[in-house]
Amino acid sequence: MNTFDFGIVGLGVMGRNLLLNIASQKFAAAGLDLDPEKVNSLQKEADAEHTLEATTDVKHFVGLIQRPRAIMLLVPAGKPVDSAIQSLLPHLDEGDIIIDGGNTYFTDTDRRFVELSAKGIHFFGMGISGGEKGARFGPSMMPGGDKKAYERLRPIFEAIAAKVEGEPCVEYLGNGSAGNYVKMVHNGIEYGIMQLISEIYDLMKRGYNLDEDTIQKAFEEWNETDLKSYLIEITGHILKQKDENGLRLINQISDWAKSKGTGKWTSQNAMDLQVPVPTIDAAVVMRDMSKSKPERIEAATKLIWNNDPAAVNAAEAIASLKSTLYFAILITYAQGLAQLRTASKEYNYELNLETVTKIWRGGCIIRANVLEDFRKAFATDANLPNILLDADIAAKLNESQNGIRTVIQFAVQKGLPVAGLMNSLAYFDAYRSENLPTNLIQAQRDYFGAHTYERIDAPGVFHTEWND
Amino acid sequence: MNTFDFGIVGLGVMGRNLLLNIASQKFAAAGLDLDPEKVNSLQKEADAEHTLEATTDVKHFVGLIQRPRAIMLLVPAGKPVDSAIQSLLPHLDEGDIIIDGGNTYFTDTDRRFVELSAKGIHFFGMGISGGEKGARFGPSMMPGGDKKAYERLRPIFEAIAAKVEGEPCVEYLGNGSAGNYVKMVHNGIEYGIMQLISEIYDLMKRGYNLDEDTIQKAFEEWNETDLKSYLIEITGHILKQKDENGLRLINQISDWAKSKGTGKWTSQNAMDLQVPVPTIDAAVVMRDMSKSKPERIEAATKLIWNNDPAAVNAAEAIASLKSTLYFAILITYAQGLAQLRTASKEYNYELNLETVTKIWRGGCIIRANVLEDFRKAFATDANLPNILLDADIAAKLNESQNGIRTVIQFAVQKGLPVAGLMNSLAYFDAYRSENLPTNLIQAQRDYFGAHTYERIDAPGVFHTEWND
Repeated sequence: MNTFDFGIVGLGVMGRNLLLNIASQKFAAAGLDLDPEKVNSLQKEADAEHTLEATTDVKHFVGLIQRPRAIMLLVPAGKPVDSAIQSLLPHLDEGDIIIDGGNTYFTDTDRRFVELSAKGIHFFGMGISGGEKGARFGPSMMPGGDKKAYERLRPIFEAIAAKVEGEPCVEYLGNGSAGNYVKMVHNGIEYGIMQLISEIYDLMKRGYNLDEDTIQKAFEEWNETDLKSYLIEITGHILKQKDENGLRLINQISDWAKSKGTGKWTSQNAMDLQVPVPTIDAAVVMRDMSKSKPERIEAATKLIWNNDPAAVNAAEAIASLKSTLYFAILITYAQGLAQLRTASKEYNYELNLETVTKIWRGGCIIRANVLEDFRKAFATDANLPNILLDADIAAKLNESQNGIRTVIQFAVQKGLPVAGLMNSLAYFDAYRSENLPTNLIQAQRDYFGAHTYERIDAPGVFHTEWND
Repeated sequence: MNTFDFGIVGLGVMGRNLLLNIASQKFAAAGLDLDPEKVNSLQKEADAEHTLEATTDVKHFVGLIQRPRAIMLLVPAGKPVDSAIQSLLPHLDEGDIIIDGGNTYFTDTDRRFVELSAKGIHFFGMGISGGEKGARFGPSMMPGGDKKAYERLRPIFEAIAAKVEGEPCVEYLGNGSAGNYVKMVHNGIEYGIMQLISEIYDLMKRGYNLDEDTIQKAFEEWNETDLKSYLIEITGHILKQKDENGLRLINQISDWAKSKGTGKWTSQNAMDLQVPVPTIDAAVVMRDMSKSKPERIEAATKLIWNNDPAAVNAAEAIASLKSTLYFAILITYAQGLAQLRTASKEYNYELNLETVTKIWRGGCIIRANVLEDFRKAFATDANLPNILLDADIAAKLNESQNGIRTVIQFAVQKGLPVAGLMNSLAYFDAYRSENLPTNLIQAQRDYFGAHTYERIDAPGVFHTEWND
């Protein structure tokens, strides 16, 4: 008893694979689940190379783990997390650590952090990205909580994490709910990039009428360039996949997109923080739009745009689309990272954005070559308010902007919706506008609501009795 | 005692003017405020034409009003509403009515509705739009609550409301917090239209280099066309206004736009309901963007786009901008009205959208000639899911879309941010897309997270073991 290194509660896809990952790294790992089938299935994996024990008995489970105990929950966000904590608590000792590894909304973590601190238990919210394979062979992990207590977890987490140039894709990120918050924004960026890729795909198909092989090859080839990233890579794989009838599977999949809410949370919280993340907003909006299928079928017969199909050169189109996607992806990261900057101040996370971009380079869904550029930008200036102000990033955007301007004009003429691309460019053009026309909005607010305004030529707050 | 028709708690700008409006309509009105100055100032307005009494004594105030009492709160949203209710409660009788006339978040109204119902008090949340002048001479009012209790309020509200073709801009809207919800979306639409007007203004100035007189005249003239509306009208006035030095005041006003949160609430709740309102989102985002002034000043020196200034014909530019604005304004209303449709189902409001568009035709900030077109559309089909599916509205959009396509292409080439226009067009082009490329997003989600997908050629839910 009390000899195991680590415990996991919840032996579903993520919990099971993380536990096997830990055991493969020569740590003794205990697993708890109420479902005997999951317990038995995991127990069969125990062998000379894997020290593990799975059980349905919470008291036995806790007793296996050496103190201070490190126990990670991998149960659905919400009430199941509270239930799991309640079932563990009677068996824990002061100084023990509970880690919530799910996609928990950050304010829930803040509440649990306070409740468990009062009982002498360290609580961590830790985002984990990488899906099933990542969990088994190396995820990116985003832990937040008590910095000192993290030392107990560090050897295990560093051993099981993805590695980039020998560096593990896990590092202590910050106070309280910092880990869940960073993971939430990670997912918001993921929504944005997926929306952008889908628009580029739509432009290739409905816009430039490229054939399916050409489209598939473009993504495959882009993954050998500065666009190299997990989401581009899997898009190349997806477009290759055939179904059981030998048809391209992508063409048989319904366009009704689902979501689990993390992108929506990112957008909603960005609005609370007054940080603009319009590409992420557009991604949330377009998933919602996809749900109105019956209305869209009717609208397609009523709202008509007749455009002239222009002859296009496929190679030129693909080159333009490549620089368009590159530009818009940079802007999407910029929005998410600016949100983290503001959130860190607002919630006292004390985030280091070099660390965040470093651990995002591997293991997670938004891993990409550009993350290394961002890491360098924050290494140069730790207080950079927005990566668009970094000289190297600015140069890349200045150079590639012609592509996105050409492509959006093409899409507008063609009648194709490119909300993600449009919001990325509008963000760029607004951000580089020393003066925005929002002075007119302030004047309107003062006109109808006496809400006052500030002046550029004098300090203070003003109200005008406007003439009709 | 017990002879007054109506009571108002909170004698600030809105409360004072509404009370004077009520008294002008020959109703006896009682006012309560803790500030003796406000009470005295109002008391001076009592004369042979105005039966009113203002007091700082809550017991005396309640005693003045005939039963069942009708008492409206015009205090800031949040805790002041709860405090006002608590101070009134000991003096009220069963069947009395409290109306909250502020911009209260709708879930607060739901809570108070339940609490007060248990005490036999009818509670109404009622949005009021029209600003100071509207309150005094005819606002648009959006009441929600108990339908039967509304009859006690109807004669007074109909007398003081704005009138359009003899019809009062107030009508019982629906259950519970329906009134606050409709007013919230009203404000969301208001945010959207203000953003669109500011972009058109920016295009005139920075884009087409029109002189200030030409710009001002364009808005003045547009108010005599199908664009006729309160916000266009006041924009014409605002652009005329000179400051004390004889300079155009608009050019002296800071571009740092403020907000009170109702637009943000609209966007955030639309995301909860999964209803796309991207033009309203863009309006919220651009107000937030306006706050990053120091960053924008720096970015303006680093993010550079050199465009060729094209020669333009002023009259052609103005004609294009007019149809652009018209198109985008229709789309903004479409988004808000679709949100109301879904909210009505979700929250059991039982809204009648013909009624909503009817009472928005006068008194409120978003009053406009187009509201009559929308009213007609809902009169033709009460269950219309989106006004874009109405044949007349569809025809107007089909006809005017060329303008917005031309203008967005111009803005993109010119490097000007037109997020509101872009999101309006993207909404239109997405809504009329029978197939969206979101099938790729579903494939990606299944690839990395085993989130499953649906097929177009077979029922059920599928998961693929994707090839690398």
